[in-house]
Formats: sequence, structure tokens, C-alpha cells
Amino acid sequence: MTDGATPRMLTLGEIARALDARLSGDASAAVCGVDHPARARADQVALAVEPGALKHLAATKARVAVVSEDAAPEALAGLAGHVAVKRARVALSVLTRLFQPAPAQGPGVHPQAFVDPSAAVDATASVGALAYVGPRARIGARSQVLPQATVGADAVLGQDCLVHSGVRIGDRVRIGDRVVLHANACLGADGFSFVTPEPGSAEMPLSANHSKVTARNDTILKIHSLGTVVIEDDVEIGACSTVDRATLGETVVKRSAKIDNLVQIAHNCVVGENCLIAGQVGLSGSVRLGDRVVLGGQAGVGDHLKIGDDAVIGGAAAVGQDVPAETIFIGYPAGPVPEKLQENMNLRRLPRLLREMMDFGKRLKMLERRLASSGGG
Amino acid sequence: MTDGATPRMLTLGEIARALDARLSGDASAAVCGVDHPARARADQVALAVEPGALKHLAATKARVAVVSEDAAPEALAGLAGHVAVKRARVALSVLTRLFQPAPAQGPGVHPQAFVDPSAAVDATASVGALAYVGPRARIGARSQVLPQATVGADAVLGQDCLVHSGVRIGDRVRIGDRVVLHANACLGADGFSFVTPEPGSAEMPLSANHSKVTARNDTILKIHSLGTVVIEDDVEIGACSTVDRATLGETVVKRSAKIDNLVQIAHNCVVGENCLIAGQVGLSGSVRLGDRVVLGGQAGVGDHLKIGDDAVIGGAAAVGQDVPAETIFIGYPAGPVPEKLQENMNLRRLPRLLREMMDFGKRLKMLERRLASSGGG
Amino acid sequence: MTDGATPRMLTLGEIARALDARLSGDASAAVCGVDHPARARADQVALAVEPGALKHLAATKARVAVVSEDAAPEALAGLAGHVAVKRARVALSVLTRLFQPAPAQGPGVHPQAFVDPSAAVDATASVGALAYVGPRARIGARSQVLPQATVGADAVLGQDCLVHSGVRIGDRVRIGDRVVLHANACLGADGFSFVTPEPGSAEMPLSANHSKVTARNDTILKIHSLGTVVIEDDVEIGACSTVDRATLGETVVKRSAKIDNLVQIAHNCVVGENCLIAGQVGLSGSVRLGDRVVLGGQAGVGDHLKIGDDAVIGGAAAVGQDVPAETIFIGYPAGPVPEKLQENMNLRRLPRLLREMMDFGKRLKMLERRLASSGGG
Repeated sequence: MTDGATPRMLTLGEIARALDARLSGDASAAVCGVDHPARARADQVALAVEPGALKHLAATKARVAVVSEDAAPEALAGLAGHVAVKRARVALSVLTRLFQPAPAQGPGVHPQAFVDPSAAVDATASVGALAYVGPRARIGARSQVLPQATVGADAVLGQDCLVHSGVRIGDRVRIGDRVVLHANACLGADGFSFVTPEPGSAEMPLSANHSKVTARNDTILKIHSLGTVVIEDDVEIGACSTVDRATLGETVVKRSAKIDNLVQIAHNCVVGENCLIAGQVGLSGSVRLGDRVVLGGQAGVGDHLKIGDDAVIGGAAAVGQDVPAETIFIGYPAGPVPEKLQENMNLRRLPRLLREMMDFGKRLKMLERRLASSGGG
Repeated sequence: MTDGATPRMLTLGEIARALDARLSGDASAAVCGVDHPARARADQVALAVEPGALKHLAATKARVAVVSEDAAPEALAGLAGHVAVKRARVALSVLTRLFQPAPAQGPGVHPQAFVDPSAAVDATASVGALAYVGPRARIGARSQVLPQATVGADAVLGQDCLVHSGVRIGDRVRIGDRVVLHANACLGADGFSFVTPEPGSAEMPLSANHSKVTARNDTILKIHSLGTVVIEDDVEIGACSTVDRATLGETVVKRSAKIDNLVQIAHNCVVGENCLIAGQVGLSGSVRLGDRVVLGGQAGVGDHLKIGDDAVIGGAAAVGQDVPAETIFIGYPAGPVPEKLQENMNLRRLPRLLREMMDFGKRLKMLERRLASSGGG
Repeated sequence: MTDGATPRMLTLGEIARALDARLSGDASAAVCGVDHPARARADQVALAVEPGALKHLAATKARVAVVSEDAAPEALAGLAGHVAVKRARVALSVLTRLFQPAPAQGPGVHPQAFVDPSAAVDATASVGALAYVGPRARIGARSQVLPQATVGADAVLGQDCLVHSGVRIGDRVRIGDRVVLHANACLGADGFSFVTPEPGSAEMPLSANHSKVTARNDTILKIHSLGTVVIEDDVEIGACSTVDRATLGETVVKRSAKIDNLVQIAHNCVVGENCLIAGQVGLSGSVRLGDRVVLGGQAGVGDHLKIGDDAVIGGAAAVGQDVPAETIFIGYPAGPVPEKLQENMNLRRLPRLLREMMDFGKRLKMLERRLASSGGG
């Protein structure tokens, strides 16, 4: 990591080692950043691994490049050196990690922060200006709480975490190590859980015979959230995303799950290890995601449903049933891929079907007339 | 309510009275919390009202329990006492209210808050560290403004409100009593209201004959929001939800309406009393919800539409028309339940329909051949 | 603009000139606000341009009004003066601009703000209480950073901007002139970009033959965001909306684009000039919107897709393909209007189709019987 003011310098040799990839040319060429060949400066390494990027190498200002293994030698002629990699996006991961800028905040508690005297902030951690750390909260080694973030009473933040500005970590929420929380994310709001003294309108079964609402929600009682939120190690949660606390027990986001912006994780959900949840996804109360589940943007999952390990849910899918492990669900309402593709194909056949029906009708009528006039039968 | 540090102690007798339910066994047994029997400690009451929870009573550490009326006596054998209730979720509401922890913030204005000298903060209210209270704002008795929240100029906050960290109450917004606003909710942003000097592309009628956009939105004029937001008594609004101010007049959320996280209530909307609005719902401009309307997660309602009293809108429903009172709408586009269930059933019949069409075609052709060869007609 | 405490006074003559419209009656009548005739006070101008508002003029307390050109003279009889306008919503734009209240914050840096010594804040700009301005950040003339907002390290904010409370402007983000950012909007969070060492489950092609997930995302590598966000002049971004930084290069929102609340603009997107993006819209990574594109609320666009100039996307549309310029797309999955309207019409014909099929089946069987019994053929 480099800090915001002085970027890190690396040689092409060091880059090749980090990428575990083959180097050609000047191993000592030093660079302080990476960019697309069309934008890269002379002190940066050009990254030309995507199709279409290679042709920009001819005019790049960069002296060195990272290219894909199958790059044609003539495209590399003008370079002082290059590194050839196998999997483009993995190389992108390594290179962007090498050159990522760090937050411009040193260790220690900023004089304009508020840290409750009963809180325990590790000496190597940092708490930024105008941040709040509540009673009995604990912050681990090297964790950074950026300006104006909140760590609630009795909350626990592990080591090497990065908590961006405006993040709200509610009272008693527990967070593991190396967790990244992006700006204005909220962990530990109350679950949305209400009940009516008599069975309410939201509890009605959906059927053709129950098309009229007969219940009246004249009184609404809150089910308070006594539980908490647990975020395990290596989780990342996006900007303005919300993870509600459990009614009793814990809402859990397991190890290494990655959650994008504006995602809603309702009370009592369990998000499995290594899940990937894209922007604006919504999980209703008590949803359980297995491990390695992928949810596309804006997908929604109804309450108490279970999504099995390794399942993939398409973008904007509306999931109203359990999804088995290793299965891909898409569409509205969501279903298995073969079924939904067939459904779409059937729909596309409808115009022809309607034309054929008209044709059949005419032919039937003609046959009937002929039989009638022939007195057949 | 109990504070974060020292939990409240209650006897089983007190719990039975609060639940208005039948007590058996030791009325004097004291507990300081409630949890599922599998997690409950010796100093907590086990809550075993959901199916499946009863069997955990055998091994629970708790000495007393709250169970459903139909619990088998043998399941309760090991307990020092128990209370039997009728409606499980109502009991959950009462029990969680009894034991909910309060924010760890006493009354008064924190020295690191900013409160404008012209603001009026009740002596029993509290304003947390790094919170902002603008000119001429008023905060009522016992209301709590938690750290880093904002109460804008001329805003009014009633009594017994709870305003979580990062909430933004815009200038002139008026809020009633006992309102709960969760972290980072925003009340009073400008409405999204723009106009083009000539009729713009968004004003075009949707029809098969108007498939090409002919307007060009070369200039966009803002319609400024002079109005405000009014939140009535007992409303609850979730984390990162937004309620925009009206162009003129007021956007209103009426008494006891409950709104989940990441919900958008656009300018000039009216949300009726006791409405329940789940996560990520979007109401476009000038939508009017009657009283006791329920909207499932991710549902959306087009602008200027009216949803009648007691209507229920399913999760992810895309509402493009008015919804009559007491009616359930589901689906995309949303429609009444019987119609949408029939639609789905028809779709499921399509594969058979397509097979029958092929069969009919063959039989028709055969009939035509036989008639032709017989010279019929 | 007027400030929150003392509203601006304008004469009817000045209003007529601002509206470029015909005045009748007392040009010197002075007002300090505008409202619907049913609510307008004696010191306000009644705005009666929408159908249905005219009839409220008879009982209005206002002495002057703005009406549509075709207003019947008898409706205006009781007024001291009126101005007649052509396009109602354009008049609304002008009038609301004239009377909009300004934030109650004068120029200068509030003593309870934190401004890094290396930051450059123009003398005419204002930084509110508890706001944070990071190292080397620059804030232009007359820009207002409201209480508790964040301007990150090396960020640039142009002139005449309005940054509401809780906005997070990330490190190195660049913002033009006259930009309005509503409460808790986040610019510059990391892009949601991850990769697995071997091809992962999210990279699988969707086909009927690939219905089972075979990849296991056992390891997830982050692609860090080295790029930034660029917001051009006259852009407005809604409350709790998020614009992520690019992996390399820039995520760009071009001149005069308007973005509503809770919108997600992912990494590497380009939003064209004058685009109008309604609430809860989601753009996946690397989406490119042309100029003047309109997106209805809750619409979603899949990654790397291109939406052409002047295209209009309906509310809740799920866009899974490129959209040509000047084309209207609606529905799930989204398609051109004529196609989707036809599709809906075909679906509505299904019940009749199913009845006809039964009828055809009977008639076929009868024909077959008659031919069989007649020994035809």
C-alpha cells in the first residue's frame, strides 16, 4: 500500500515476481502506478490484458507493460520491458493491490474525535477527526476508523479493518479482522419486524380464493431487536448498505463474503462464506445463503428462504422459493435456467401460435362444411 | 427499557402480567434477558413459541420459559416455571420491549455537539457527541439525538423520539412524538423534479405508434422544493431511507406508519396511517397510500398512483395502475391475485398447448387428405 | 435565493418579467412566497396552473396568482393581479427558483469543522460545523459544504456547489461547478470488482445446457480501485446515492445529468450529459449512457451495456442488452415498446386461445369419428 501523498515505486522485476509471471526486457525499470496504455504516463506500467488494449501500446507513454501471454511480439516492440500473464483479471487484482493508495490518516486518535474513556483503542489503530467511539467499544491493531464514522457502545472491531467515513457500527455489533466497510454503510439498525394483535393483512395466504383483504392492521406492535450483527473476517460491505440486527441471536455475514452498495440484509439473515452480493440486492428476514452464493444486482429473496451452496442468482431475479445448491436461478419469478429459457422461447412462439390457430380454425370450418354438404357420416 | 451497561431484572410473575398470560411455577424467578432456549443463559427466560423451539427446552440453561399454550407438559418438566401465551409473535413483541437495551446516552447536550444558540432543546432531551442542531430547531422532552445526527434549521422534533447516528433531518422538517429514525436516514432532500422548456422525452405517451423518441432534453430546468416533510407520531423509518420534501406543501408520513431500510418516498407522497413498507420499496412522486397499506420488499409504485386502504402489494411488484382498497396486487406488471395466478397457470400450460397444436396440425392434414382422396364435398 | 430566516420579497411585476409572461392588474403587489391557492397566504402568490387548481382561486387568501393562459376570466375576478403562463411546469421551475430558501450557513470555516492545513478553501466558500476537509483538498468560490459532510484528501470541489450534510466525497474525486449533492450521497467508494484464481461461478455462460454450477469460488481476490470519480458541472445527485470510483481511469457523470435518491452508479460507468436517472436505478459496472438518456425508477442495467442518446428506459425495466439511440425500452426483460406491448397483448389472448383449443379438439374428434364411421378415404 502507498499513502495518498507519495506513491510507491516498484521495478518491473518486482512486479513480475508479484504476478508470478514471465519477464522480458529491463527488470530494473521503476514505476509508481498502473493504467490503461492510452492513459499511462512514462512512470507507470501500462496494463494491456483486455482485448483491444494491445493496440494502444504503440502510442503509449509508458516504457513497460503487463500483457496477456498471447500478445503478438510486434505489439511489444517499442517497450523497454514487459511481463506476460495468463489470467487478465487476476493480474489486475495483483497490480491494483500493489499500487492502491492508502487513506491519508496516520495512527492515533484525532483530537477532534470523541472516544469514550471506557473504550479500548489499540495504540496502532487510528480514529479520524469527528469520529465517535462509544463506551466499552474495542478497536484492534492497525484498524482505521476514518473521519465521522461511528463505533457504537460495546462494539468490537478486529485488526486491520478499514471503516470509511459515515459508517455506522451499532451498539454491540462484532466485526472480525481485515473487514472493509464503505462510506455510510449501517450495521445494526433494528430489524423491520412488526406484528398485529390479530392476524394481519400481510399474513394472508395468496390464492385465487383470497383476493380480498379482510384483516385490518389497526394496531401495530414492534418486535424489538435484542440481537446483534456479526461480521466475520475479510468481509467487505459497500456504501449505504444496511445489515440489520437479529431479533434474538445474530445476523451473520460469514468469512470473506463481499457485499456491494445499497444492499439490504434483513434481520436474522445468514450470508455464507465467500458470497458475492451485487448492488441493490435485498434479502428479506431470516434468509439463509449457503457458501459461495452469487447474487446479481437488484435481485431479491423472500423471507425465510434458503439458497444452497454455490447457487447463482441472476440480476433482478425475484426469488420466491428455495434454491438448491449449485443451481442457477433467473427471472421474475425466478426459476432454474432451462425452465426460464424454455418459458421465454414459448412466449416468443406465441405470435406464430396465434396465426396457426386462425389457420386451423379456417381449415376446420372448411372440413366441416365439406362433410356437411357431402352428408358424410 | 434498560441501558446498555446494566440490564433490567424482571421476575417471571412480572413477565406473566406484561404478557397477560397464565403462569405456572416459580413467580419470583428473576431474569435479565430473553433468548432462544438453545442460547438462553441461566439468568434469561427461554422463548419457545415457534415450532421447533420446544424440543430445545430439554437442554436449555434457562430456568424459566415462555411457551405456546399448546406446549406438551413433558417438554416443560425441567423448568422452575413457565408462562403460556396464545399468539407467539405478540408475546415476542412484549418480551423484546421489556428487555430492549437503551442507547448509552444520558440527557443533556454533549460538549462536542453543535447546537445553535437559537435552537430550543428540552432539558430532558439529549444531543450526542458531534451531532448538529441548527438555528431555531426545536427538540422535545426526552428525545434522543444520537452522535453525529443532524437536525436542520427550523426543524421540529417532538417528544420521546430516537434519532440514530447519521440521520439527516432537513431544514423545516416537522417530526411528531415517539418517532424512531434509523442510522443515515434522510428526511427533506429536494424532490427529483425537472422540466424541459419544450415537452421532453419522459413526457411521451407509451404506445406502439410512439416507439421512437423525438424530443431532445437539451435543457433541463429544476423545479425547486419549497415544501417540507411531515412525519407524524409513532412513525419508524429505516436505515438509509429517504423521504423527499414536497415541491409546495408537504410530503406526509402519517401516524404509526413503519418504513424499512433503503426505501424511497418521493416528493409530495402521502403515506397513510399504519402502513408497512418493506425494504427497498420505491414510491414515485405524488403517490398516495391509503391507511394500513402493506408493501413487500422492492415493490415500486409509479408516479401519481393511488393505493387504497388495506391494500397489500407483493414483494418486487411493479405497480403501474391505481390499486383499489382491500385488494392484493402482485407481479410484473402488478395486477390482482386471481388474474396474475391465472396468467401464470396459462403460461405453464403453454408447453402442452404447443404439443397439442402440432398434434392438431397432423390430424387436420390427415383429415384433409382423406377428404381429398375420397373426393368428399 | 432567500435565506432560511428572512424570505425574499418580489412584486408581481418582477415575477411576470422572470416568467416572461403577460401581467394583468397590480404590478406592485409584493409577495414573499408561492403556494397552491388552497394553502397560499395573503403575502404569497397562488400558483394555479395545474388542472383543478383554478377552482381554488375563488376562496384563496392570496391576492395575486400565476395561472395558465387558458384560465377563464371569471376564475380570476377576485384577484388584485395575475400572470398568465404557457407551460405550467416551466413556470413552476421559475417560481420555485425565485423563492427557494438557502441553507442557513454563512461563508467561512466553522470553528467546529476540521480543515486540513494543506487544504485550499476559497474565502467565499463555507465549511459547516463538524464537516471534514482532507489534506490538499480544494473548495471553490461560494461553494457550501454543510455540517458533517466529508471532502476527502486531494478532492476538488468547484464553484457554487452545494454539498449537503453527510455527503462523502472520497479521496481524489473531482467535482465541477454548480453541483448539488444531497444528504449522505457517497462518491468514490471502491468498485465491486472481484475475481477468482480460476474462472468463477459468475463467469458461467447462461444456457439450457449449463444449468449446474461447476465452479467453486473458494478464493476471492479483490480488484482494487485505483481510479476516481469525475462529476461535471451542473450535476445533481440524490440522497444516499452512490457513485463508485473506476478501477483505472474515471467513473464519469457528465454535465447537467440529474440523479435521484438511492441510485447506484458502479465503477467505470459513464453517464452522459443531461441524463435523468430516477430513484433506485442501478447501473452495473462499465455501463455507458449516451446523452439525454432517461431511466425510470428502479430500472437496472447489466454490466458493460450501452444505452444510446435520447433513449428512454421505463420504470422497473430490467435491461439485459444494448439499447439503440432514441428508443424506448420497457419491461422484464426490457425490450422495445412495440414488441413488449405485443407480447402483453398476446398474453392477454391466452385464455381465449386455450378455450379455442378445447373447441378445436372436440370438433376435430367429431370430424374424425364421422369420417371413420363413413369409412371415408
